Amino acid sequence: MTREERYAHGLKVLEQVDGEAGRRVVDTLADTSPELGHQVVAWAFGDMYARPELQPRERQLVTLGVLAALGGCEIELDVHINAALNVGLAPTEITEALLHSAVYCGMPRAINATLVAKKVFGERGLLPLTNV
Amino acid sequence: MTREERYAHGLKVLEQVDGEAGRRVVDTLADTSPELGHQVVAWAFGDMYARPELQPRERQLVTLGVLAALGGCEIELDVHINAALNVGLAPTEITEALLHSAVYCGMPRAINATLVAKKVFGERGLLPLTNV
Amino acid sequence: MTREERYAHGLKVLEQVDGEAGRRVVDTLADTSPELGHQVVAWAFGDMYARPELQPRERQLVTLGVLAALGGCEIELDVHINAALNVGLAPTEITEALLHSAVYCGMPRAINATLVAKKVFGERGLLPLTNV
Amino acid sequence: MTREERYAHGLKVLEQVDGEAGRRVVDTLADTSPELGHQVVAWAFGDMYARPELQPRERQLVTLGVLAALGGCEIELDVHINAALNVGLAPTEITEALLHSAVYCGMPRAINATLVAKKVFGERGLLPLTNV
Amino acid sequence: MTREERYAHGLKVLEQVDGEAGRRVVDTLADTSPELGHQVVAWAFGDMYARPELQPRERQLVTLGVLAALGGCEIELDVHINAALNVGLAPTEITEALLHSAVYCGMPRAINATLVAKKVFGERGLLPLTNV
Amino acid sequence: MTREERYAHGLKVLEQVDGEAGRRVVDTLADTSPELGHQVVAWAFGDMYARPELQPRERQLVTLGVLAALGGCEIELDVHINAALNVGLAPTEITEALLHSAVYCGMPRAINATLVAKKVFGERGLLPLTNV
Repeated sequence: MTREERYAHGLKVLEQVDGEAGRRVVDTLADTSPELGHQVVAWAFGDMYARPELQPRERQLVTLGVLAALGGCEIELDVHINAALNVGLAPTEITEALLHSAVYCGMPRAINATLVAKKVFGERGLLPLTNV
Repeated sequence: MTREERYAHGLKVLEQVDGEAGRRVVDTLADTSPELGHQVVAWAFGDMYARPELQPRERQLVTLGVLAALGGCEIELDVHINAALNVGLAPTEITEALLHSAVYCGMPRAINATLVAKKVFGERGLLPLTNV
Repeated sequence: MTREERYAHGLKVLEQVDGEAGRRVVDTLADTSPELGHQVVAWAFGDMYARPELQPRERQLVTLGVLAALGGCEIELDVHINAALNVGLAPTEITEALLHSAVYCGMPRAINATLVAKKVFGERGLLPLTNV
Repeated sequence: MTREERYAHGLKVLEQVDGEAGRRVVDTLADTSPELGHQVVAWAFGDMYARPELQPRERQLVTLGVLAALGGCEIELDVHINAALNVGLAPTEITEALLHSAVYCGMPRAINATLVAKKVFGERGLLPLTNV
Repeated sequence: MTREERYAHGLKVLEQVDGEAGRRVVDTLADTSPELGHQVVAWAFGDMYARPELQPRERQLVTLGVLAALGGCEIELDVHINAALNVGLAPTEITEALLHSAVYCGMPRAINATLVAKKVFGERGLLPLTNV
Repeated sequence: MTREERYAHGLKVLEQVDGEAGRRVVDTLADTSPELGHQVVAWAFGDMYARPELQPRERQLVTLGVLAALGGCEIELDVHINAALNVGLAPTEITEALLHSAVYCGMPRAINATLVAKKVFGERGLLPLTNV
């Protein structure tokens, strides 16, 4: 597999998972660190996301847990809350995952991540959540 | 004690400590994750803050240390620097706590937290600090 | 619901999820900070884990993501990798979740968490993993 | 003030606050990074701890909050839980500060720090805590 | 050496390394926590940066690694990406250092730091990078 | 390039940089998460370390900064302090990098990393350091 084929394969996975939002982050890196963009696409999506050992919705639950815990990842949470919706997690499953994270990483991280969810849900016309 | 009574009790504590600022964060969560708002009020304030084992000003010193160290908690620092003033910490005690945190979590975290203090002090007409 | 009822309810959930391992951590806290043990049981398990919005295996995927990202949580990862097995995650799903976390929190956090998984899997006679 | 005078001044403050435990950490650094030991003594203690803007017990409350939140600081927590006792915090005030930190940095960090407190309290013959 | 001489010495080092950007951060602290500004200048720059054991460009590589890993340090990364350019690191060496950090602290931290580099490079007319 | 060729290429780079220590970590993962071991070798070393944009000693300075800042990475610091010596950093340059990191990530992280350096230097017969 050539470098270009690895990139093309990763891009297909990225677009299935993240839709537009992930692509935009990669494009933003193009004039500054194209290799970082390449690694996000070819490695993170092409090598890691593509593996069948977890379902896409399960992968996003892990991702939400990691990003909530790290803190300071509002840009990436925006992409991955969109991705979580794209792969079939319900809004209330996303907010429940973030609520659950509060037990382990504390209230501020959970609140900050939930404020990103509020922004994404608002942009997609999903607010107010019902059945909560 | 019912769920509603736990909430009502927590809300009274939250308003004593945080005033308006804490209430606003909880309100913001209402359409996205009302349960997270409930837990902040009923658990964090009703169960934890209400305990008499530490004085309110001591609780805020611990809180400032934790929030400075975590980083990326500007929203929560805003609430809790206001809270620290509400429960009787002097502005110079707040900046000293953040200065002290630099020994343990480094200059950037201390600077970022102090910039939030600057914003809060400015909004409350406390700048420039005197006797520093 | 009284304080004792909340504790009893949480203990039942904790024992379903964590089995022996979680109980041991709570017992260890009894002579030093019984209230912390109470909050782990009554709040974390009784209030949070008991909610039906996520399946137990999904809750553990979030937990693994958060604990891997935090770092320095070997004791808690031990409990929760056991818990993940208890609620039906396959060993290869656990290692895949930790592998996936490497994209977001880096190789050292993923390696450290995987070394805890190795220890737990070894204690439960699951090594070497097959089908990997 | 010469470099040696700054060190001597810091050492006096360190010994008042930390007693033996802090000195041992500095001694351990002597063959590997004597300058790091110097900075801990001359800067952290001589310049920062010596400032009168916070009382010693208040400084330790901030320190406990920062160290609990950082995680992976068992060595330093050992020193500073000893220091907290030395400057007059009651064991139950220390465990309450760590319990309080759980709201902001999550249960695992609070548990890990409390396990260090358990070790220190045990070494000083303070277990089991009474009046908790 | 007096307190004022230590400050004056530190200021000279800060201006060599950081140019205007570092000075601005210190000035911003003046009405809120002048002592924090003093410690940044007199200690961080006067005591630490001035040491000859590492070359300035090597010190900035360590700094970039630490700031990328911490996260939530956009203000400080702005100062230190400028500083890295000032002491002779090429833009592609800076982006490579941040790319390298992704192995150890994950993609989101590396992306966030690279977005700060993009901003700084843009302000200095260095985009798009060539030879990448 | 096949998956096996990418691994073989990465292994050659890993052995040049890390010597035995890195290989041992990968071997330890073989029965639990062979894919994580593969990614460390094929991606981290084969794709990232192999890039010529930074010299090996510069790459290790960034790595030391990231690992010190993360905390809880004693296993990885052990490998990379050995690696830093292997690629030509002097012991005093390593301790200086860790001392420098204290400005940005605080004393406890710097102390913990320096204690790992003490262990590695001791194993390699380099203590006490001279010219410090």
